[in-house]
Amino acid sequence: MLGKLTGWEDTIVALATPPGVGAIGVIRVSGPLSIRLVAGLFPGKDLEQQDSHTLHVGVLKEGEEALDEVVVSLFRAPRSYTGEHVVEISCHGSAFVLERVIGAILRCGARLAKAGEFTQRAFLNGKMDLAQAEAVADLIASQTAAAARTALHTVRGGFSRALRDLRERLISFSALIELELDFSQEDVEFADRTQLYHLIDEASLTTGALLQSFRLGNVIRNGVAVAIVGKPNAGKSTLLNTLLNEDRAIVSEIAGTTRDTIEETLNIDGILFRLIDTAGIRQHTADVIEQIGVGRSLEKMEQADVVLYIFDVGEAMSEIVAVREGLMAKGKAFLLVGNKVDAVAVGTVHGGDDRVATVAQVRFPEEVLISAKEGKGIDVLKQRLVDLVLKGEAADGTMVTNARHYEALRKVDESLRTIRTGLDELLPGDLLSLDIRHCLHYLGEITGEITSEDRLDYIFSKFCIGK
Amino acid sequence: MLGKLTGWEDTIVALATPPGVGAIGVIRVSGPLSIRLVAGLFPGKDLEQQDSHTLHVGVLKEGEEALDEVVVSLFRAPRSYTGEHVVEISCHGSAFVLERVIGAILRCGARLAKAGEFTQRAFLNGKMDLAQAEAVADLIASQTAAAARTALHTVRGGFSRALRDLRERLISFSALIELELDFSQEDVEFADRTQLYHLIDEASLTTGALLQSFRLGNVIRNGVAVAIVGKPNAGKSTLLNTLLNEDRAIVSEIAGTTRDTIEETLNIDGILFRLIDTAGIRQHTADVIEQIGVGRSLEKMEQADVVLYIFDVGEAMSEIVAVREGLMAKGKAFLLVGNKVDAVAVGTVHGGDDRVATVAQVRFPEEVLISAKEGKGIDVLKQRLVDLVLKGEAADGTMVTNARHYEALRKVDESLRTIRTGLDELLPGDLLSLDIRHCLHYLGEITGEITSEDRLDYIFSKFCIGK
Repeated sequence: MLGKLTGWEDTIVALATPPGVGAIGVIRVSGPLSIRLVAGLFPGKDLEQQDSHTLHVGVLKEGEEALDEVVVSLFRAPRSYTGEHVVEISCHGSAFVLERVIGAILRCGARLAKAGEFTQRAFLNGKMDLAQAEAVADLIASQTAAAARTALHTVRGGFSRALRDLRERLISFSALIELELDFSQEDVEFADRTQLYHLIDEASLTTGALLQSFRLGNVIRNGVAVAIVGKPNAGKSTLLNTLLNEDRAIVSEIAGTTRDTIEETLNIDGILFRLIDTAGIRQHTADVIEQIGVGRSLEKMEQADVVLYIFDVGEAMSEIVAVREGLMAKGKAFLLVGNKVDAVAVGTVHGGDDRVATVAQVRFPEEVLISAKEGKGIDVLKQRLVDLVLKGEAADGTMVTNARHYEALRKVDESLRTIRTGLDELLPGDLLSLDIRHCLHYLGEITGEITSEDRLDYIFSKFCIGK
Repeated sequence: MLGKLTGWEDTIVALATPPGVGAIGVIRVSGPLSIRLVAGLFPGKDLEQQDSHTLHVGVLKEGEEALDEVVVSLFRAPRSYTGEHVVEISCHGSAFVLERVIGAILRCGARLAKAGEFTQRAFLNGKMDLAQAEAVADLIASQTAAAARTALHTVRGGFSRALRDLRERLISFSALIELELDFSQEDVEFADRTQLYHLIDEASLTTGALLQSFRLGNVIRNGVAVAIVGKPNAGKSTLLNTLLNEDRAIVSEIAGTTRDTIEETLNIDGILFRLIDTAGIRQHTADVIEQIGVGRSLEKMEQADVVLYIFDVGEAMSEIVAVREGLMAKGKAFLLVGNKVDAVAVGTVHGGDDRVATVAQVRFPEEVLISAKEGKGIDVLKQRLVDLVLKGEAADGTMVTNARHYEALRKVDESLRTIRTGLDELLPGDLLSLDIRHCLHYLGEITGEITSEDRLDYIFSKFCIGK
């Protein structure tokens, strides 16, 4: 048994894999003395003499008691997740065995890691900024391809690069202002005002794009709320069933998705669509105008990110026009879904049956023609839904998904506007500089450069243990 | 995207860690082409050029789509768990991310591993025998220190060594017999009969010890059933509560142990004691003789591995003697627990109050004196319980815990007796040889040397996926 040495309390240990029975379970140990500590439990080989990024098979022993046959992964500082020496021990996946191994490591002087403490150390050691660290938690919690993609993009530094870009613009601006300050006695306007405006406008554009991406980012993180509305017998429930039935096989492949959730969610191209209070909508019998304009239906539509208005393609044109105008006035994303094309011949440019052609032709940019009953046009409808969600996506995939980042960015945006007003009002350079400092402060809050320790502890406490 | 190549269907993939959300999840890939397959998804570095037992950090990509930032562990054949090339991919612990990575690997031509298939390959490639492979499953399922210890001992080959020993004795015997056959025309008795008897007796001893260890092995694997019996007011429920309360803290440390289970089990020194139908025993009001002799109590005692008979130390000596004789006649392991020592002075060798000294002194080897109320003597009682269980333990920790092994060993034992009878009856050598072949056959069933493919498939199907 190893005695406790000073400094070993800096060695943290936790189970890194989910609890429960599996083939293997991985225990993570981090700290300047982590390799020495585990070496004391691994008599078969001197781990302290081994290279970084190597694997070692052997028996973990506490005194004479064999704890498990394990594979030890060595990561030497700074080439590790936390930036410290890290040892990962791959044990047999028995909760009991894992408890014993963790117990032995604790008895050597390590302590249990707090939630998120490994990632917190990675942040403190400069392995990632706060935005990246938070995205690690998002990545772990991701349930769709889009959410995973966005989080991974941020983990890999995509969002941080956008922020750095913003920061650099602000610093350039600041440099020009300060140059002007230096020459202020000479009453020359060294910094070209046009250039200042240009820099501030560019920064505002970046911030604006990031802020705008939050709507989509949020949608990707939490799913898209979709309200399917329409007159009775327009085919709402048939559409719903067609969508759900086709989707069920895909959704059920995802581990942990419960049947209850499947009933009301659609995963299309990795984006989660949540159908809000569908039962209510299904039973609703009021007329269309009421349905999209007042009362419960309005409420449902307010909650929705997207409205699907489903109608019979045989319906009078004027009604659809009214609905469309109502939806546009609300500023909602929507699709007009003309159902029951199976009941009429679909018109083509080259003619055909003129009477029905005018009925079943697409007349609005938001219109999709389907047959819910026969499953026709469903793929197109799905694609249109996805397009609707993705239309705000930045080309490089950078997206704000975190409400904390959004709030900080809003303050950055506000500061930028204050600076612009200052420029307009010919504010002296030192006051403009102060505003820029505010702006940089809010940016620093996102990346964690100026975040207080308490705040950091709070942010990391939302992580899972072992990360 | 990689095209499918011939032979890639031999590459198997599975999640090796428990499902659910954790910091990391590990995906295991095995097969002759596993490294090449994963290398195709890992563009940052040529994995095929890397050494065995090395770790590689990078981004896993399917085409242009980044799947996750991962750590890849390389194990080259035969220095791996399965004996084939093995790649373990440590991903972010999102069920969704893990599904995507597994999906990408499947699309490259691998297939999902069946339950236990990694271990089955380890067995087929001679990395372990069947007894060891089965102990891997036991180790993963172990819930107590003793169960983990026994399983680990078997995984590490302890049991297999005992079987090898047995096998060598049988082969020596066989060699002597065959030598005799060769010289049979000359009517010399080349093989010394004494030596033959000696070899068979030694083999029987080994088998006997292994068979006997099954009682304990089984107990360690499944827990020890304990019946606490005694007259009303002897202190059964107080003892039960004292035991359970003290134990609760220890048991609750073990992940996955539910509260319901805790109510009725005790973990003492890593051995699980199950209190059978305690409520029934508590409410039982019949007199002692009936309680240990007939009806429901008898049934309970039949189910129990150990009987704790609790009595008031002030009780008449003759009753305890009767109970003790009854228990000995049943051949049950038991302890006589004299309760309420707090109510009397405990006698010592050096005297004291003579009247109570005779009452509260230990009079039987199976006797323990306690005060359930004051918690006195409880530690001694626990130690005695553990001793009772461990008294059959083989010195080197080899134990039969698997019912399949037990059955095969019983057939080995039977064959040995047949051989001995053959020796007694001066059976010709060729017939003795046949009996030995039977015996070796049953031994081979344990280690898997002669087990049929169907049987193997069945055994491994009881494993978890990913092992």
